[in-house]
Amino acid sequence: MQTPKWLLDASGCPGFLGHELRAREERLPYIHHTETLRLKIPSRYGLVFLNDKVEDVVRRSGVLDGQCFVSSLHITAGFYVNDAEDGLLHDLSGWLEKLAPYGLPYRHHFTGEDNADAHLKSFLTNHFVVAPVTKGRLDFGTWQRIFYAEFDGLREKSVIVKVMGIL
Amino acid sequence: MQTPKWLLDASGCPGFLGHELRAREERLPYIHHTETLRLKIPSRYGLVFLNDKVEDVVRRSGVLDGQCFVSSLHITAGFYVNDAEDGLLHDLSGWLEKLAPYGLPYRHHFTGEDNADAHLKSFLTNHFVVAPVTKGRLDFGTWQRIFYAEFDGLREKSVIVKVMGIL
Amino acid sequence: MQTPKWLLDASGCPGFLGHELRAREERLPYIHHTETLRLKIPSRYGLVFLNDKVEDVVRRSGVLDGQCFVSSLHITAGFYVNDAEDGLLHDLSGWLEKLAPYGLPYRHHFTGEDNADAHLKSFLTNHFVVAPVTKGRLDFGTWQRIFYAEFDGLREKSVIVKVMGIL
Repeated sequence: MQTPKWLLDASGCPGFLGHELRAREERLPYIHHTETLRLKIPSRYGLVFLNDKVEDVVRRSGVLDGQCFVSSLHITAGFYVNDAEDGLLHDLSGWLEKLAPYGLPYRHHFTGEDNADAHLKSFLTNHFVVAPVTKGRLDFGTWQRIFYAEFDGLREKSVIVKVMGIL
Repeated sequence: MQTPKWLLDASGCPGFLGHELRAREERLPYIHHTETLRLKIPSRYGLVFLNDKVEDVVRRSGVLDGQCFVSSLHITAGFYVNDAEDGLLHDLSGWLEKLAPYGLPYRHHFTGEDNADAHLKSFLTNHFVVAPVTKGRLDFGTWQRIFYAEFDGLREKSVIVKVMGIL
Repeated sequence: MQTPKWLLDASGCPGFLGHELRAREERLPYIHHTETLRLKIPSRYGLVFLNDKVEDVVRRSGVLDGQCFVSSLHITAGFYVNDAEDGLLHDLSGWLEKLAPYGLPYRHHFTGEDNADAHLKSFLTNHFVVAPVTKGRLDFGTWQRIFYAEFDGLREKSVIVKVMGIL
């Protein structure tokens, strides 16, 4: 197998093709719309498609341009933006399990918990994402989707979605 | 030991229970309040509880609804949101050391530095966090706390906290 | 080799030196300025210096105080903030390759793709960064620079830069 070739250049962006204005908005009022989503994932671990639920909140907010902040109220879950392809979900879950394994003799387990791996997986996954909102929609590429990563499921969890921007 | 069961479903969020409005604010004025926190961590490495200091800035800002951005001005430190349990801090520090070890023959050390591992640990930890502010408080769950992760301490560092939102 | 000494303290920030106001702005109007940057990185992998291009957008936006959101429209690229030192770029690229190797028998490759490693590397790198803007500039420390991390290059990609703040 070939080692990948890396372009490592700290002196400029070699493939820069240009820039263009996408939007510029300064209408008032400025609104903050916050919702709680409630979830109970029916397994201990899960990578679950939350994109539609987040888009629903953006639509209900009425925000035309701004940002959408998504975070859980818990420390054993996380969020990421990537592809919804099933094979990749398997690759990603196996890889997370390898990097932060379940069942090692973690010190956190002296408290009676057995979920230290969930904290580490959450650390790798990040506890929040910010997504841009332009023209009233999540400003995503063709394959970008928001996923909720649950690492200690089987009980009710809460997710905050805060949409901030120009109406 | 049992292999964890993963729920891998790209077609929807299986455990979705519902949504509810948490806050909706459009009062003006809109304020940006920025403070610098100065720190000198008394060891090379440290996972230190910065939550109270960040909450103090939110309080001083007077912001009712918005977001709190926290970042360091350095590239050998980071931030994360997780549990303040001591056993977990030990697990996390050992795990970071395993993923990005100190003392390997890094090329960065040709410059005279010996802290390449600190850059890699910072990369894993992220250089910033964004936290939601609702009703004048960090909108966190019971166990969520902001930590400052220092990987090259023993000298003065600066942290920016910028609170942006509706007064 | 010596094991690193970690300061692990969940009860406070031991080296806290103080805080000071850096900026407080409430002038209107509030503006959102969004640009698309177009790139075609001339190799499959690359860590490329995008800082100047992002600073150009901040300048064109005219924003005095706020935040700069940078994200790609793709799921095989990412962003991070760190040092532009060439040795470190080599360390970082080798380390990413070790954590998320190219050429393993990933399930994602059943679709005909060969870039599952790029999705995993993107997951580690994060799909976006948020940077603070104060006094019309990226509010960065001496060595902080925004990098675009390409893991599946050789074709045109788009990057969104959205600057939101007070004019």
